[in-house]
This record gives sequence, C-alpha cells and structure tokens, in this order.
Amino acid sequence: MSKEITSRQQDYSQWYNDLIIKSGLADYSAVRGCMVIKPYGYALWENMRDELDRMFKETGHQNAYFPLFVPKSLFEKEEENAEGFAKECAVVTHYRLKVNPDKKGALMVDPESRLEEELIIRPTSEAIIWNTYKSWIQSYRDLPLLINQWANVVRWEMRTRLFLRTAEFLWQEGHTAHATAEEAVAETKQMLEVYADFAEHYMAMPVIKGVKSANERFAGAVDTYCIEALMQDGKALQAGTSHFLGQNFAKAFDVKFSDKQNKLDYVWATSWGVSTRLIGALVMAHSDDDGLILPPRLAPIQVVIVPIFKGEEQKRLIDEKVVPLMKELKAVGIKVKYDDSDHTRPGWKFAEYELKGVPVRIAVGARDIEKNLVEVARRDTKGKLNMSLDGLAINIEKLLHAIQENIYNKAFSFRETHITNADAWDDFVRLLDEKGGFVSAHWDGTGDTEDRIKEMTKATIRCIPLNNQQEDGNCILTGKPSTQRVLFARAY
Amino acid sequence: MSKEITSRQQDYSQWYNDLIIKSGLADYSAVRGCMVIKPYGYALWENMRDELDRMFKETGHQNAYFPLFVPKSLFEKEEENAEGFAKECAVVTHYRLKVNPDKKGALMVDPESRLEEELIIRPTSEAIIWNTYKSWIQSYRDLPLLINQWANVVRWEMRTRLFLRTAEFLWQEGHTAHATAEEAVAETKQMLEVYADFAEHYMAMPVIKGVKSANERFAGAVDTYCIEALMQDGKALQAGTSHFLGQNFAKAFDVKFSDKQNKLDYVWATSWGVSTRLIGALVMAHSDDDGLILPPRLAPIQVVIVPIFKGEEQKRLIDEKVVPLMKELKAVGIKVKYDDSDHTRPGWKFAEYELKGVPVRIAVGARDIEKNLVEVARRDTKGKLNMSLDGLAINIEKLLHAIQENIYNKAFSFRETHITNADAWDDFVRLLDEKGGFVSAHWDGTGDTEDRIKEMTKATIRCIPLNNQQEDGNCILTGKPSTQRVLFARAY
Repeated sequence: MSKEITSRQQDYSQWYNDLIIKSGLADYSAVRGCMVIKPYGYALWENMRDELDRMFKETGHQNAYFPLFVPKSLFEKEEENAEGFAKECAVVTHYRLKVNPDKKGALMVDPESRLEEELIIRPTSEAIIWNTYKSWIQSYRDLPLLINQWANVVRWEMRTRLFLRTAEFLWQEGHTAHATAEEAVAETKQMLEVYADFAEHYMAMPVIKGVKSANERFAGAVDTYCIEALMQDGKALQAGTSHFLGQNFAKAFDVKFSDKQNKLDYVWATSWGVSTRLIGALVMAHSDDDGLILPPRLAPIQVVIVPIFKGEEQKRLIDEKVVPLMKELKAVGIKVKYDDSDHTRPGWKFAEYELKGVPVRIAVGARDIEKNLVEVARRDTKGKLNMSLDGLAINIEKLLHAIQENIYNKAFSFRETHITNADAWDDFVRLLDEKGGFVSAHWDGTGDTEDRIKEMTKATIRCIPLNNQQEDGNCILTGKPSTQRVLFARAY
Repeated sequence: MSKEITSRQQDYSQWYNDLIIKSGLADYSAVRGCMVIKPYGYALWENMRDELDRMFKETGHQNAYFPLFVPKSLFEKEEENAEGFAKECAVVTHYRLKVNPDKKGALMVDPESRLEEELIIRPTSEAIIWNTYKSWIQSYRDLPLLINQWANVVRWEMRTRLFLRTAEFLWQEGHTAHATAEEAVAETKQMLEVYADFAEHYMAMPVIKGVKSANERFAGAVDTYCIEALMQDGKALQAGTSHFLGQNFAKAFDVKFSDKQNKLDYVWATSWGVSTRLIGALVMAHSDDDGLILPPRLAPIQVVIVPIFKGEEQKRLIDEKVVPLMKELKAVGIKVKYDDSDHTRPGWKFAEYELKGVPVRIAVGARDIEKNLVEVARRDTKGKLNMSLDGLAINIEKLLHAIQENIYNKAFSFRETHITNADAWDDFVRLLDEKGGFVSAHWDGTGDTEDRIKEMTKATIRCIPLNNQQEDGNCILTGKPSTQRVLFARAY
C-alpha cells in the first residue's frame, strides 16, 4: 500500500504538496492559511533551529522574547514599514467572549470588551522591539545590542502554500543596534554569510548572495541583502534576508545614544530573518518522485535499520546483531531508528523511508548476517551495496558525509547550468519560458523598468550579486546604458 | 552605584518586581499585560525548556506545532472548556489595515476586511489539536499519540504580574491520545512525576503532588493533577498541571478509533503544561534581599570570574592564570564568564552578580595568585573561602553540587515547617493570617464549602495530596464528617 505521489513532470506544484503531506512534514488545518507542522516536520525544524541558534550565539547574539501584539499607534510609527505590512495584518479588537443568548452552547464576542486601541499581531517585530530599545540604550556602552528572537508571526496571505507562504509561520528575527553605520552594515553582511553558510553546509543548497533592488527591499530598510536559491522547476526562492535599516527605526522611535564625546546621535540598526519557509526550499531543492531527499546533517532520522526475517528465531538472531550496531552508530553521533514493527512488510517500510527521505537504509537479513553482511542503500542515488558489520559505524559515517556532499554537488551543478546570460529581449523571454533558472541581464536601474519586466514576464530581479562583475551593456528592456548584469527569475 | 532593591520584609511584592527588573530577567512592555523577556531571563527559560524537552522526549513524546488561531466555532465545541476560558480570549476580527484618510501617517482597521468567523488566539490548544487528531487517529495502531508543543498563548488578565500572570506567556502543552482510560490516567500521572522531578532536581524547589478539587479543576478535565510549591512569603504557587480529560474532547470533536476487535470507541485524552510562570516561582522560592539565588543546574552563568588588579602588568599576570582556568571549567561543562570589563570596579561587579544570582564568584587578585590562590564566594550562603588553583575546576564542580543541594534543602525545610494542621476554625484563620504556608484541614468535600472558605479567608484548596492519609475528622468550616485532610493556602 504505497502512497501515491504525483510526479514532478506531471504537476510540480501537486508533487510538492503530495510530498509534504504524505511524508508527514505538515498537514492542513481548520484555520484558513495556517498549517500544522507534524512531528517529522517539526523535528526537521528543530535541527535547523538548533544549528542556526548555535551560529547566532557564536557570533555574539543573545535570544530574548518580545510581545506578540503591537499597539496600532506603535506599529504605524515607522511609516514605510507600516504601510508595507498594512495589508497583511491580523487585528485583535476584543478581549472577551460571552455566552450567546440566542444560540444554545454558542459563544459570541462581547461587544463591551472592545479594546480602546487595536492590537496588531506582529508581522515582524521592529516596531515593538525598537520601542523597547529606547529604554535600553543610553550610551555607547550599551552598544552593540545583539538580540535574536525565535517566534511566530502572522502575515495574512490570500494565496497560501504549505511552508512557502502561510498566514502564521515560525521564524527567527535578529534585531541589532550599533553606534556607527559601518558596524551595522558589517553586521548585516555577517548575518548574510551565516545564512549562506547554513544553506550550503547544512541544507546542501547553494545560494547566491546579493542585494535587492529598491522595489524588492524590505519596507523600512536602506538595503536588503538576500540569499537566493534555485528550485528544480527553475524558479528562484528567497531563502533569507538581512536588512541594513539605517537610522530609520531609531528616528521613528527616538532611540539615541551618547558617544564617548558625550554627543547624542541616533542608533544604527539591522534586522535579519529566516523562517519555516526554508523547509519548503529544502524539499523543492533536492527531492524526487519517490519522496523527500534530506541532507544527512539535518535529517531527523539519518539511518533506518529494517530487519528481514521469517519466524522468531531469525528475528532473534538479527536483534543480536542490531542491538550492538545501534549502540555503535549512536556512539558516533548518528541518529538511527530500528523499525522492527511487525504490522508492515519490509517493502512497505523501504517505500515509507524513501518517502521520508532518510539518507541511509540498512536492511539486515538472516542470510546476510551469517556472512557478517548487511545491505546498505543510500537515498540520494538509490545505490545499494553490501557492507561488513565490522567497522560499519565508521563506514556509515563516511557514507553520510558523501551523501551530504553529493546532494550539494547535484544542486550546485543544476544551479550553475541554470544561470544564463541574455542580451536580447526575445532570448530573455524564451529563457524564462523554456529553460527557467536565473537569467543574467543588463537593467537600466529604474523601478519602472523592473515593474514593466515583471508585468510582461512574471520575472523579478532576484538580486544584484555581491562583488558583481562590472561591464558596460544595455538594459534588456529599454536599451538604456547599464554597468552590470542583475539576476532575473520567476520566483516563489 | 548599586541597584536599590526593596527588602522582602518591607514589601514582598515590590521586592519581587524589583528583582525581576533589576536583575535583567524581564521588562515591562508597551502592550498592556505583556512583558519582554530579556536575554538573561530568556537564557534561564532556555535552560528550563531544554531540560524539560529532554525529559518529554525520553518519555516518548514528540514536538509539533499547531496554529495560533482557533476559529470560534471550534473553540466552543467543548462547552466546559470554552466557557472556562471565554472571559480571557483575545479575538481577531479583521485582517487588514489601510491608510487613515483623516489623519496623516496613521493607519486604521479596514472595515471591509472583517472576518466571516472570528479567530480566538489560543488560550490553550485542546480545541485546535483535537480537531486535527480527528484525521490522524483511525485505529488502535495510531495510539498512543504523544505530542507536545512549545508555544505562546494568550489569556487576557486584568491584574498582571511579571512572569506570574501575563496576558501572553510562553509554555509547553502536551496533548496525548490513548486507547484506554487506564493508559491515559497513567500518562497524566507520569507527566506529573516529570514535572515534580524537574521542579525538585533542577529548580531545587520542593513540591507537593496532588489532585485538585472540582472547583479548581481545568475546564473540561475529569481530573486535574498538580504540583504545588511554597513561596517565601507563605503563599502557595501552582507550578504545573496534568489533566486527565476522559473522553470529553474526543466526544466534542468526534475522535474515535477502532480497536483490535474492530470495535469503535472514543479516544481517551490528557493534557499537561508548565509555563514561564516557573521563572516567577524560581525567583520567589530562593532569592534574598540582595538579589536572585539561582540553582546551579539552571543558572545561565554558573561561575563568574572577576579580576582584581592595579595596572596592566597585574592584569596580564591574572589573565595568564584565568585563560587556562576558563578552559578547565568549560571542559567539565561549567558555564563560566570572565568579566574583565574596565568601566566598572570589582565591588560593583560583586553586587551585580549577586543581584543576578550567579552561584559562584571567583575573585582573582594579583597578590593571591602569587600564592596560587583565588577567593571563591558562594551566592547561597555568602560564604567565602580561598581555594588553590590546582584542581580548582573539580572543586568548583563539587561546590556547584553542594549549592544546588543546599538551596533545595533550605526550601524543603521552610516548606516542611509550613505545613500545619488545623482542627478549629479560629486556628485555621490565625494560621493563614500569621504563619502562612499550607494549612492541612478536614473538608466536607463540597464546592460550596470551598467557596465559602475562599470568600472568608482568601484561601483555596491547593490539592488533595497523592497517597493522602485517610483519617476521620470534621470539616473545618461546617463540622460535617470528612475522611481526609486537604491542603489549604493563599496562593499566587
């Protein structure tokens, strides 16, 4: 009874939804646009969170927690930011229910509990945090202030997709305060590097580091840096952003500090975040028609052991080998599961763990162990080989490293073959339609041209790569002079 | 410039607030009833969360995440639960803001974005979770379902206190489903034991395990088990609850399973939770007029090293000793901080780390290190002694164990001397007024009597202790026959 998954070729979008649901990462919920993150998906998120959290702490950041609610009067203080998020805000207006006198067993909102001021559910926390920083920052000694928060946020979306775009999602948001613009820019770039490092070395997902055009900038930022990944259908996905906020929020919330010369100045700010959207990216970057392919460094289960036997005596002999093997694997830090449940057959289990993207499967058969052998299958290549039980843990450890590397290399070469230069409009459109991926083209630098290109092709400027090569050229649409190419793509 | 703290004797409640704010655990926020958990407080919460999470996973639970919002029609399905929380519900009614045409720079709720159905911000998640379990549970093979969630919840409170009672708080909520009542009751009791274990062995806070009277039961539960702690002012504090929910939620959400004989039955449920309230309990259980006293097993900083020197040469000599010492301490898993900041004097630092409750302070002076000695001060007893640098890490490790034990013992003997029997009404009232603590008295078992006692004395039944001794007696208020004493107290 294998679980049917639509193939990528048939319907990429349905393939994605099938994978998420059937592998047990998440489920739809009764709340419009909100999802349930199931235990397997949450275990994956915990692994991602723990690595990121370690990286944030190693770069000097501390965690804190700020309120879910933002009073409307605070929310609107930084005007650009407020207007950028206004259309997506869930609003709390009342604080009490009462028995509905007209309907037995039902409750109604108590009209007498109307709030004097509406509370916005944070779509992002700059407003509430900068309002707090006002009382935390007086002198240069209080800087830099390097704080991160793990939290849920709400952005009301009309068209939602599991993990990629949900009304509520989990994320981390860093909010830092600095004495100089240079320090804040350095922090912004440092966190971009942390994100890129995480994407490449943990998610096995190559990313392009760049800066956003003005049109795509975070509302309220001076500059938005980003990492952009490429999915298997040729669409780009913004995987993380790091914003240099200048003094915008400090001015909106009147946050000043006195420097060593006792001179008052506004504080410089950054913010940066990644979210459960990364799980969507991970799924779309690597998986195949049989299920998830998870990179070993993030997989909740790295190795599954499946016994193959007839009768209790064979099972007992297998257990005798598996118990010490489990110990050895755990001793070298491998997350291993022994699935000896008796109500499903080995074939069903094989399919199930392929679907779940477990990197390595070890089948232990009664005959093989007589020869001191087990069958080891890797999820990424579907390759199988027999391995000796002697020194198996070390060999499995090596195999996991090899799988991590192979998954990255595969995604990297796909990405590399999907960055294409276009110098004529027809080519530009054809590339987007037929090949997908990033199209590198000249652009005249105006938001207007960017808007027109988006309207005509649905492609946006994903980023201007860091350390971009400077070369003279002409805008792909208007023919106006340009000094560098930028990366266009259709995107999630 | 030491930070002034009100003494316990002067004003216990103000002492508590002073401690929280001045030690940097938390801060007030711009949102009514919500607080900001500052980095030091959040680090403490992370330590608590990590230990609890480990304990939950060791007992077979998995984490997941369910939506923040509960549609009103789902919320009201389990009537008792809904009515119990109705008066504390924050309600989302709209999903968009727009520019306010009458006020420059201001936003207003867009009246056209009114939701068809209001969304309740979860005060607890039974409703949304059991609505989801309906599609996850079909057969006995799907049971037990052992899930926990770390999340924020909102309960609108009129009178709030930092950590103890805030409109939004962080917590974990376990929600499990079982095939039989016996299994569900066993789970309820198991999680109570986990909580008691955590309170006693990590928080160093003795607790009484018991069951609530009907009046104090969780809305929708068949039985509520609890752990009750005693604060230094003689008031009790409910530190965690574990509920046996019977089939109430399964019936409300129509969650049935087929058993091995293919017979359909409703599923049996439990839920259990502890929250950031535990931080308030920790503070009030142990701290003194000079600041926090944190148990070493949860302290974000276990050891602080303060150098005492004149001039750079002395500082250099001290650094030479401290660098390897830090390594040794970290090697045995001790969280150590070296505070060699130069803008505050040692005396200021001593006071600051006392305020922050760091269990051990090591002062390293230029003269002492010539003799290979450092001065070690423990926060709990304020005792100081000189220790040799040789083997210091091991001795500090032992000292941390001794401090953990001493803090527990002190709280335990305070608690033991504050459980007093009362057999006459006058004694009962005098004990509550003059001595505080738990008063053990007979009760006729009715909610009416309990209500009257509460009205007259502000004391409630904290619990009927597990394995309570059975003895004949007469109700402290009504004189009616009773078979056991119960514990009364005024409580937070």
